[in-house]
Amino acid sequence: MRVPALSVGRTLATVAGQRQPFKVVEVGARDGLQNEKQIIPTEDKVNLINRLSACGLKSIEATSFVSPKWVPQMGDHQEVIEKIAKFPDVSYPVLVPNLAGLKNALKNGHVTEIAVFGAASDTFSMKNVNANVEDSLKKLQEVTKAALKEGLKVRGYVSCVIGCPYEGKINSSVVARVAEALMDAGCYEVSLGDTIGVGSAGSVSAMLDTVIKSVPPNRLAVHFHDTYGQALANVIVAIEKGIRVADSSVAGLGGCPYAAGATGNLATEDLVYMLNDLGFDTGVDLNKLVDTSTWICSKMGRRNASRVANALNAKRL
Amino acid sequence: MRVPALSVGRTLATVAGQRQPFKVVEVGARDGLQNEKQIIPTEDKVNLINRLSACGLKSIEATSFVSPKWVPQMGDHQEVIEKIAKFPDVSYPVLVPNLAGLKNALKNGHVTEIAVFGAASDTFSMKNVNANVEDSLKKLQEVTKAALKEGLKVRGYVSCVIGCPYEGKINSSVVARVAEALMDAGCYEVSLGDTIGVGSAGSVSAMLDTVIKSVPPNRLAVHFHDTYGQALANVIVAIEKGIRVADSSVAGLGGCPYAAGATGNLATEDLVYMLNDLGFDTGVDLNKLVDTSTWICSKMGRRNASRVANALNAKRL
Repeated sequence: MRVPALSVGRTLATVAGQRQPFKVVEVGARDGLQNEKQIIPTEDKVNLINRLSACGLKSIEATSFVSPKWVPQMGDHQEVIEKIAKFPDVSYPVLVPNLAGLKNALKNGHVTEIAVFGAASDTFSMKNVNANVEDSLKKLQEVTKAALKEGLKVRGYVSCVIGCPYEGKINSSVVARVAEALMDAGCYEVSLGDTIGVGSAGSVSAMLDTVIKSVPPNRLAVHFHDTYGQALANVIVAIEKGIRVADSSVAGLGGCPYAAGATGNLATEDLVYMLNDLGFDTGVDLNKLVDTSTWICSKMGRRNASRVANALNAKRL
Repeated sequence: MRVPALSVGRTLATVAGQRQPFKVVEVGARDGLQNEKQIIPTEDKVNLINRLSACGLKSIEATSFVSPKWVPQMGDHQEVIEKIAKFPDVSYPVLVPNLAGLKNALKNGHVTEIAVFGAASDTFSMKNVNANVEDSLKKLQEVTKAALKEGLKVRGYVSCVIGCPYEGKINSSVVARVAEALMDAGCYEVSLGDTIGVGSAGSVSAMLDTVIKSVPPNRLAVHFHDTYGQALANVIVAIEKGIRVADSSVAGLGGCPYAAGATGNLATEDLVYMLNDLGFDTGVDLNKLVDTSTWICSKMGRRNASRVANALNAKRL
């Protein structure tokens, strides 16, 4: 039996004796809390973000400037972005759906990075922003250009990169088209989101092969949900393709809105545990992160969805 | 950025248009139930194994011929192995710790395959079989040879291949030594068990590289626990090394005896979901498996530890 010549291992993470950086984008306070049923007090959100900053995370999504009519959980966006401690080397991107959201985000002068989102599914896009994929790209370009003009950094998201809750299987060439359009508009990085968590190693590998033909891996991030427990295995596949940025959520905050009771985002603790073991340099203090995870779960009276947090807490007892 | 030339994807699973086989060894009824606190009625165990056979699994560990004094959960081994339906193309290995266990297993003529186990840690070995690694290997050779003489197939296990609950980090060369000794004794396959689930992609990759120098990948299996959520990512690493057999447990049955409340075995549903997506031929009917998983969890009043089972059940509602 032929043994593959190259595979994920510490050789990928350490080059010439130097640990290579891997960026973990913490999305718990935004993507996570937005998909939780209960509304969290602003003070707890601010504490959560401050604690995450102290863990060594370098990019922490803080909130979303969507209308509170649609996402009541993020109605305190102005207060959150104003009150959080701004660590000098940490970025606090906020989600912005349109020009009105951008205007709002610019109001208090605390926002330096925004995230814009497109989807690779017409139906999903229609239900979310009332425009099909092509029309939504025009709007995204407008928002991105306006933000760049104001000196903001812009990160792009593509939703439904593997499957769509309405359309089922997604054609990877549409994902590539949306990712390329976001890069062309001026995003510094595009995060590929498996919104419903159905992707696994085979489909993720095939999707990434297609997208990488349009956008190089060093401008891509991956955003996996652990609904089917596949997220970490998918990150391994992404690492092999040359990707060095992944989104995750402390304690796996955020359920899956398309499968009630199922797990949401990949837990940051589980991701950092693997990246540490591979030898990557994430800058994250795993013990502090588990403390933060334990704290927010007890505040919310919520089961911790991170297996690393549960295992380390069980060991501590 | 250099993109690796080879990585896990559907190309590994489909050769010349043919889906390649991948053997899933179901250990829920033995390794799983043995580590559950409650004692399951014999009738339920028999039903569980019969249902698993009907799911298309080809190797199902049925029970353990250890002394009921040590493992009361497996005290009904004679009854279980006698009563289960023997599907013609399915193997039902039983765990055998020593010659007395083998004698017992041979009694009723229903056993055709046994599994023997060694460990890569002296302390773990002393606590389990009251012999250090080298002495335990001599005993294993005796049992294996006696079993082969009786016409049985023998599968070997190595415990603590990454970490030991008493000794911490394990030297991979000891794992290789034990695996090689088991092969030399006549085992047809050796399963490498990360007993405490601490292994992740980097350490698993390094360990496998060492072991494969002594035992070829087509004679190896991997046995991961999902305590730290790393099991599936580890299977990806194993697949890349050429390994095509993995152990798992329906519903993730079996806790972690070294971290109370933490997750045990990799769930078979989560593994099969990934193998299907990669294009491997496992022969397993995932929907039937989820039904079986749901059934045993409701019998036991236990939370299902399979994310795939939880997600598919949530979707069904």
